[in-house]
Amino acid sequence: MSTSDARLERLVAPIAGDLGRMRDILARQLAERSHAVSDMTDHVARFRGKQLRGALVLLSGDATGNITDEHPAIAAIVEMIHLATLVHDDVLDGAEVRRRVACVNQRWDNQVAVLLGDFLYARAFALSTDLSSRLASRALAEATRRICVGEIEQSTLRYDFELSDERCEAIASAKTATLYAVACELGARYPGGRDDVGQELWHFGQEIGLAFQIVDDCLDVVGEEAVVGKSVGQDVEDGKVTLPVLHAYRRAGRAAQARIREIYTQPGLAHRVQLLRAACDLAGGVESAMARAAELAESASSRVARLPESSARAALEELAGYVVERRW
Amino acid sequence: MSTSDARLERLVAPIAGDLGRMRDILARQLAERSHAVSDMTDHVARFRGKQLRGALVLLSGDATGNITDEHPAIAAIVEMIHLATLVHDDVLDGAEVRRRVACVNQRWDNQVAVLLGDFLYARAFALSTDLSSRLASRALAEATRRICVGEIEQSTLRYDFELSDERCEAIASAKTATLYAVACELGARYPGGRDDVGQELWHFGQEIGLAFQIVDDCLDVVGEEAVVGKSVGQDVEDGKVTLPVLHAYRRAGRAAQARIREIYTQPGLAHRVQLLRAACDLAGGVESAMARAAELAESASSRVARLPESSARAALEELAGYVVERRW
Repeated sequence: MSTSDARLERLVAPIAGDLGRMRDILARQLAERSHAVSDMTDHVARFRGKQLRGALVLLSGDATGNITDEHPAIAAIVEMIHLATLVHDDVLDGAEVRRRVACVNQRWDNQVAVLLGDFLYARAFALSTDLSSRLASRALAEATRRICVGEIEQSTLRYDFELSDERCEAIASAKTATLYAVACELGARYPGGRDDVGQELWHFGQEIGLAFQIVDDCLDVVGEEAVVGKSVGQDVEDGKVTLPVLHAYRRAGRAAQARIREIYTQPGLAHRVQLLRAACDLAGGVESAMARAAELAESASSRVARLPESSARAALEELAGYVVERRW
Repeated sequence: MSTSDARLERLVAPIAGDLGRMRDILARQLAERSHAVSDMTDHVARFRGKQLRGALVLLSGDATGNITDEHPAIAAIVEMIHLATLVHDDVLDGAEVRRRVACVNQRWDNQVAVLLGDFLYARAFALSTDLSSRLASRALAEATRRICVGEIEQSTLRYDFELSDERCEAIASAKTATLYAVACELGARYPGGRDDVGQELWHFGQEIGLAFQIVDDCLDVVGEEAVVGKSVGQDVEDGKVTLPVLHAYRRAGRAAQARIREIYTQPGLAHRVQLLRAACDLAGGVESAMARAAELAESASSRVARLPESSARAALEELAGYVVERRW
């Protein structure tokens, strides 16, 4: 277990019981009589990741004194939606299939990945309709729509270096922070009411979600593959202009800017991220983006500091720090 | 307007007003502030197709005396789910991308097609949570899950000529008939209760949906591209063993069976469906599969014949016939 793992484990200690219940529900939901399907969900379940979003539902519920018997189910639904987005993220476009044959999932093809993601979404929505209040179904369907819009916007803004910080952050917010925000909001106000606390926790989730994405974007350009645990440089390959790159681009001279655009757009280039590191002050861009992430985490932390003291509140505050300090 | 179009137009006449309302709702739901998204939904809206599933919600409601103000919204939700499945059907796997470059959607790539489908699902579920009863959300989330399981099962049973009729039909039912069945069921019993009529209409939808799929499978192997309006032979390309092919295979001698398997599996073959036509008595297989479709349509028709006489009931009966007589 790495230091990071141990820290996360400690963070979620106040909700360990409910987290176990969430995992049980998740396992039951992923089970399916069809062998073809359960074979795949077994595979997906192994990549369960940090389960931060599910944990946020429970911590937010606990810290606001709003935890109910249904919170573990809501946490499981949020995790299923997250899993569905991950599975769909793995679908490659035509160009990528040709360029990255080695990375294409060898066990199942694109079409099955699409169906599996759809299955996970459907399971998540079906489970949400069993809850006593419709608040979760509503909030999560709406959140899913916002996530898709954010992803589509991002894909149409590839290679766009004229992007404002605001627009860049709005996209990162929509595609990533949305699920964090709704997780925290539902934790704090499900099954209903308590609008002010719900809204405050929504903002908390929004800020740490955006901070999380910015850190992700930074790790993608300057992280070490062995530490991050996934291939770095993918955003550059995909033509995504993220906040650290945008900041590095703005600080660069004209010649360097032209070179950056060339690295992003010229077909057939290998190791684009290495070329990018050589072409501009990427570390400077990362530093400035990380400062923004820290500012967001700070603001998030101050929101929950107003809640009554509890171990769950302390965990939320520490989580805000964890999100910007993590190295993976 | 073709004869088929005119016939369909006449069929839906009893519910013309509600069908217009359904189309208005659909148009509003597909609108999205994001230009990137609305550009795509505009494109998708142009392929609105026959809107049979939406019409079935309304005709079933009308024929059972159960129509409510919310029926047009339910019909729109069903159509959105159908659109989402169509968009996701267009996602190609790696092999296909390489084999069928010319067919890959030139305007948007796989990833965007996945996101657009997800957006449509999310919109559909979000709209369903605005309805007064949760019956539609529940039934449609569950139906979506069944559709995905059916599609995944089908993809794992490619190239399998030992398939039983029962299994083959179970897959076609899950992937296609499910949405017809739930459309008819919701039409008949939304917002709740009336279980017996709801169940009868569920079976009606199930039977015409399966008949529709069998006819589709037949058109894929013996239809004329110009008439069907889409490329034929796709199932053979995809390795899908459909009912008409299965029946033709069973009637074939050993040598012909080996040839059929070869046509399905040998890499790099062109015009597989033409080869298949030459290799076995495909017309015989189609005839036998069509007889099964007619039997299903007949059973479906007899179910609604028990409802009180009305123009909507007459339309449902005729629709059962239309489904097996259509040539596109």
